[in-house]
Amino acid sequence: MTKKIAILGASGYTGAELVRLIATHPGFEIAALTGERKAGQGMGSVFPFLRHMDLPDLVRIEEVDFAGIDLAFCALPHATSQAVISTLPADLRVIDLSADFRLRDPAAYEKWYGKPHAAPDLQQEAVYGLTEFYRDAIARARLVAGTGCNAATGQYALRPLIEAGAIDLDEIILDLKCGVSGAGRSLKENLLHAEMSEGTQPYAVGGTHRHLGEFDQEFSLLAGRPVEIQFTPHLVPMNRGILATAWLRGDASQIHAVLSERYCAESFLHVLPFGTVPSTHDVRGSNFVHIGVVGDRRPGRAMVVAALDNLTKGSSGQALQNANLMMGFDEAEGLLAPPLFP
Amino acid sequence: MTKKIAILGASGYTGAELVRLIATHPGFEIAALTGERKAGQGMGSVFPFLRHMDLPDLVRIEEVDFAGIDLAFCALPHATSQAVISTLPADLRVIDLSADFRLRDPAAYEKWYGKPHAAPDLQQEAVYGLTEFYRDAIARARLVAGTGCNAATGQYALRPLIEAGAIDLDEIILDLKCGVSGAGRSLKENLLHAEMSEGTQPYAVGGTHRHLGEFDQEFSLLAGRPVEIQFTPHLVPMNRGILATAWLRGDASQIHAVLSERYCAESFLHVLPFGTVPSTHDVRGSNFVHIGVVGDRRPGRAMVVAALDNLTKGSSGQALQNANLMMGFDEAEGLLAPPLFP
Amino acid sequence: MTKKIAILGASGYTGAELVRLIATHPGFEIAALTGERKAGQGMGSVFPFLRHMDLPDLVRIEEVDFAGIDLAFCALPHATSQAVISTLPADLRVIDLSADFRLRDPAAYEKWYGKPHAAPDLQQEAVYGLTEFYRDAIARARLVAGTGCNAATGQYALRPLIEAGAIDLDEIILDLKCGVSGAGRSLKENLLHAEMSEGTQPYAVGGTHRHLGEFDQEFSLLAGRPVEIQFTPHLVPMNRGILATAWLRGDASQIHAVLSERYCAESFLHVLPFGTVPSTHDVRGSNFVHIGVVGDRRPGRAMVVAALDNLTKGSSGQALQNANLMMGFDEAEGLLAPPLFP
Amino acid sequence: MTKKIAILGASGYTGAELVRLIATHPGFEIAALTGERKAGQGMGSVFPFLRHMDLPDLVRIEEVDFAGIDLAFCALPHATSQAVISTLPADLRVIDLSADFRLRDPAAYEKWYGKPHAAPDLQQEAVYGLTEFYRDAIARARLVAGTGCNAATGQYALRPLIEAGAIDLDEIILDLKCGVSGAGRSLKENLLHAEMSEGTQPYAVGGTHRHLGEFDQEFSLLAGRPVEIQFTPHLVPMNRGILATAWLRGDASQIHAVLSERYCAESFLHVLPFGTVPSTHDVRGSNFVHIGVVGDRRPGRAMVVAALDNLTKGSSGQALQNANLMMGFDEAEGLLAPPLFP
Repeated sequence: MTKKIAILGASGYTGAELVRLIATHPGFEIAALTGERKAGQGMGSVFPFLRHMDLPDLVRIEEVDFAGIDLAFCALPHATSQAVISTLPADLRVIDLSADFRLRDPAAYEKWYGKPHAAPDLQQEAVYGLTEFYRDAIARARLVAGTGCNAATGQYALRPLIEAGAIDLDEIILDLKCGVSGAGRSLKENLLHAEMSEGTQPYAVGGTHRHLGEFDQEFSLLAGRPVEIQFTPHLVPMNRGILATAWLRGDASQIHAVLSERYCAESFLHVLPFGTVPSTHDVRGSNFVHIGVVGDRRPGRAMVVAALDNLTKGSSGQALQNANLMMGFDEAEGLLAPPLFP
Repeated sequence: MTKKIAILGASGYTGAELVRLIATHPGFEIAALTGERKAGQGMGSVFPFLRHMDLPDLVRIEEVDFAGIDLAFCALPHATSQAVISTLPADLRVIDLSADFRLRDPAAYEKWYGKPHAAPDLQQEAVYGLTEFYRDAIARARLVAGTGCNAATGQYALRPLIEAGAIDLDEIILDLKCGVSGAGRSLKENLLHAEMSEGTQPYAVGGTHRHLGEFDQEFSLLAGRPVEIQFTPHLVPMNRGILATAWLRGDASQIHAVLSERYCAESFLHVLPFGTVPSTHDVRGSNFVHIGVVGDRRPGRAMVVAALDNLTKGSSGQALQNANLMMGFDEAEGLLAPPLFP
Repeated sequence: MTKKIAILGASGYTGAELVRLIATHPGFEIAALTGERKAGQGMGSVFPFLRHMDLPDLVRIEEVDFAGIDLAFCALPHATSQAVISTLPADLRVIDLSADFRLRDPAAYEKWYGKPHAAPDLQQEAVYGLTEFYRDAIARARLVAGTGCNAATGQYALRPLIEAGAIDLDEIILDLKCGVSGAGRSLKENLLHAEMSEGTQPYAVGGTHRHLGEFDQEFSLLAGRPVEIQFTPHLVPMNRGILATAWLRGDASQIHAVLSERYCAESFLHVLPFGTVPSTHDVRGSNFVHIGVVGDRRPGRAMVVAALDNLTKGSSGQALQNANLMMGFDEAEGLLAPPLFP
Repeated sequence: MTKKIAILGASGYTGAELVRLIATHPGFEIAALTGERKAGQGMGSVFPFLRHMDLPDLVRIEEVDFAGIDLAFCALPHATSQAVISTLPADLRVIDLSADFRLRDPAAYEKWYGKPHAAPDLQQEAVYGLTEFYRDAIARARLVAGTGCNAATGQYALRPLIEAGAIDLDEIILDLKCGVSGAGRSLKENLLHAEMSEGTQPYAVGGTHRHLGEFDQEFSLLAGRPVEIQFTPHLVPMNRGILATAWLRGDASQIHAVLSERYCAESFLHVLPFGTVPSTHDVRGSNFVHIGVVGDRRPGRAMVVAALDNLTKGSSGQALQNANLMMGFDEAEGLLAPPLFP
């Protein structure tokens, strides 16, 4: 039976990506789309690539009748989400794509986001949305917190290794290469084509990137002790894609074996043959994650490289995968289209 | 009932694009994939973006058992196709993506391609594959000749206008902007990232581009008199997409009306509101064509701008659309996924 | 003897490009740099690529002591220039890079820019800055109006042909492909890397682009009768460069001869061998213009293609070339560095 | 007095970059250019961006009269250089840009390059070309071996720290992001625009990249004990630029102090304020190196990030800087032009 969904914040990239993915999903019907600044406009004028679709116009959130809605995707800016979700019907199932509900600990939230959480009850209730690791809880959850896109990439590379004790927990370095759509549709000089194309640079250096809050929370939980990784992302002139290069201490073969075994039954997580490395080119526009493991000339050192599309598996694809679980559809429904290459 | 297909020449971009599209098509099963130089390899090693699919390995054409095959896509290099198709079973239905069967007139073929056609009988039999204009013939055809990607873009902009007598036939200028994948996977210095990115230039100038043969054939047929347009393509640093800017003499409003009426029932052809122009960004990876019409400050002059994805609607998407017709599926099956943006 | 210059509006792309070019010029000393919103900052923090240079900090215009300044470059936004230049010392020589003084006719200014000119006296005084055609007047001028970058490209392709009567004046079509830096450092969604890379689209369609005012003024003056060309620019995902494709009626050989003869003594204007077309790749970052001429299969039709760098020859390089003339330096001083390739 | 130079292998990117840089150098005259496969052609046809220059045509090496040549740049493919240089006049001063003379130890050469060196005497004689560290020896050398571009970047980040004992020598990780021109003009599928743009991937993984031979040689020499770093490069869709992210153990403030002090008198090496990171955008086309140092939330950990242009400071700019030393010119002559931005 068709489920009706609403997308709050449909005028940003993750909102549009949800529409793109749901377009080929047989079980979901888009009943409402909101966009505060662009209310009144059609999606086809905000995103002409969706021009061929028959979609509801953008409205303000307060104009939405949530009565018949089965699930709401909340693709609002960080900090806005917590205020809005508090006002939604208490029985409405919600998948939040912002950063607002990723951290369970109020103190950690305040540390990384600079102010106290406005909806601490919801914060406790929210289930962390990394599908392959929180499947059952997500299926039952009322509120799911989509992960950070960088955080997702790093966790796919590292969680099984931490769980299996296959790597030195004190020596984890994560060097990320990130596509520019991760910054959203925000108007900043360094995101202009003229300033972004043809070059690369690090950002959020020195252990300051907020996704470290997620890594700390999840890795420490898995390890049963505090784990603090080193992590720096770099902006790369590509629109979609994250490549995580994890520099690790451990036995490369064992690392490969642990990842291969853990992910062998997963539809979207592919561990490449030992020594083969992934490319973001090969996952663009898709929900797949490619993971490679290589050794080093120095014994006991290894590199795990994971690639995914930040807007799909790192955000809206993940959200749809979770929505499938919550609504009783096949988890992969609408998500198996191959990447776009070239 | 599932139809079995073969893709001859699956190691090039149009072959891989066929696989990408068919992956989400419920009615086709890929029974054989060929690649002469890469025979023996898996598609996942030739195109790692297809790694997650369960596909037959690449073989040589002579290794294919065509007995159970319902339809073959022939994505071989120009001139190779005519030799290969001659050797296929006489009742095998074939969609050729090369240039070999686009021109019906042997003299025209020799003029544009520099040598006599090697399979003149097949040349006579082939149906020109511009779906929306040869629908019935394609449905019944044994051999369909996929159009040139530039030729398709120009024809979508111009055919209804020529048919309706809405433009001056002697003053048609087509200035094209083409993505680099149109050149295929060929190893040429000017196609290297270092030489192609961040710049643009014309090519095949002076009325020498082979797709002029198609324009001449089709437009003259429509007009009932010889029509020779001016046409120059420009390479633009984008992987997919063709933008055709047609500079025309005629009444812009009438032109808009003619195109709107002609295409209103078409699934893939969208005429934008008068005065709005399309972008290749908005059709990337999809089978859609966006067409805009604008007037000029000089009365009696107009511009029609058409945008499509050369690998999809300009080539492999068109081929799949034709295959749907030939096999009795819904014409749009497997082709309605939205473009990839951003 | 060293001349002291000021750059008003040094925090935009054309201002920074002036600094880049002047850095290797032996005769100019940068005495003042202004930037209203970034006053107080060093150029090295606004433009880190200039970090190695010893430059004055950005100040507000009113803080500049113009006493010792020989020449001011005014790289302010359109409409701001006319207000600011009116307040500068009356004997200060000025090169304006905005659109404010390009049109001599007050009515034409109002038509294209939507409001009356605020400094009509200066408007009358200003000399149009297309160096190779206004050399003597520029050398003597107090106020020089830098041309539009699109307008410069089109004029290099067409002026000698109009002057020589080598083309049909009523049938001139100019299809431009423009790099994104032409839009300046303005924060617009369509200029974001995520929305601009990998695609192309027309803009300012239908004979509405303001540079038409310049074409009309100059071409009509040359022809001694009104000339109205058709002109549409297209945004191309490259940071620098304009490629002008002019579709013309005339004899291609004669056209090539006229351009070759007219430009043979020019340092920066290179006419390629007949039938060869230029690429923006080959002029990037330089003051050179490459111009190609090709015929068409239809006799009496020709294409002229001109390529230049919008920030250099189309704007700041042109300004420096004019400054050389005004200050008595060799016209090419500081401007002969080759393009950057790849 | 003008010095005459020859460029052997002028049809590749480093050869063309030498011509570009020498074009603005007052002391060098290009007397001969060679290119085996393109002998007989003009440089303007091989590299149209050099069309405006008056240059000798490409010839074969054996056609060059070395009598009047003061210095030869050898920009030939790896392994070719050693054979060619052996045949040059014994008193001709040579700067080799290939990998052939970078390693002093014959065994190391054989290990990293897979076969014995063909000119072991020259190998002993060659001086390693990292200007700022071998200045005196370079000035006197007959044969200078240009460094690897990745090797140069990493050494600028690390040499002073190793020398000063400011970092843990056993825990050096170098994660590089490299522009595509580093691969030269070689025709490979993964270097095509269609396959390279819009994505990133690692290459030469697992401690196999040949520039490790240089790191081992130089760092071990500096440390007085074997030093083996971990190093993996990643291809990034940009034409020029290398960004080296070094993950280190040491005190970030001390690291910043050591680098600042060591480089304060250098023209081309700029250490940014503590906590600021460089971008390849800001060094493109120039001979400058920008180096940033940041701490981490984990005490005792630091990141050094260095950015340079692989074709300029990483290769041909370095070569010209060395040539200046060898010929008695100011070391920075012809190399102070600012980067190209945007």
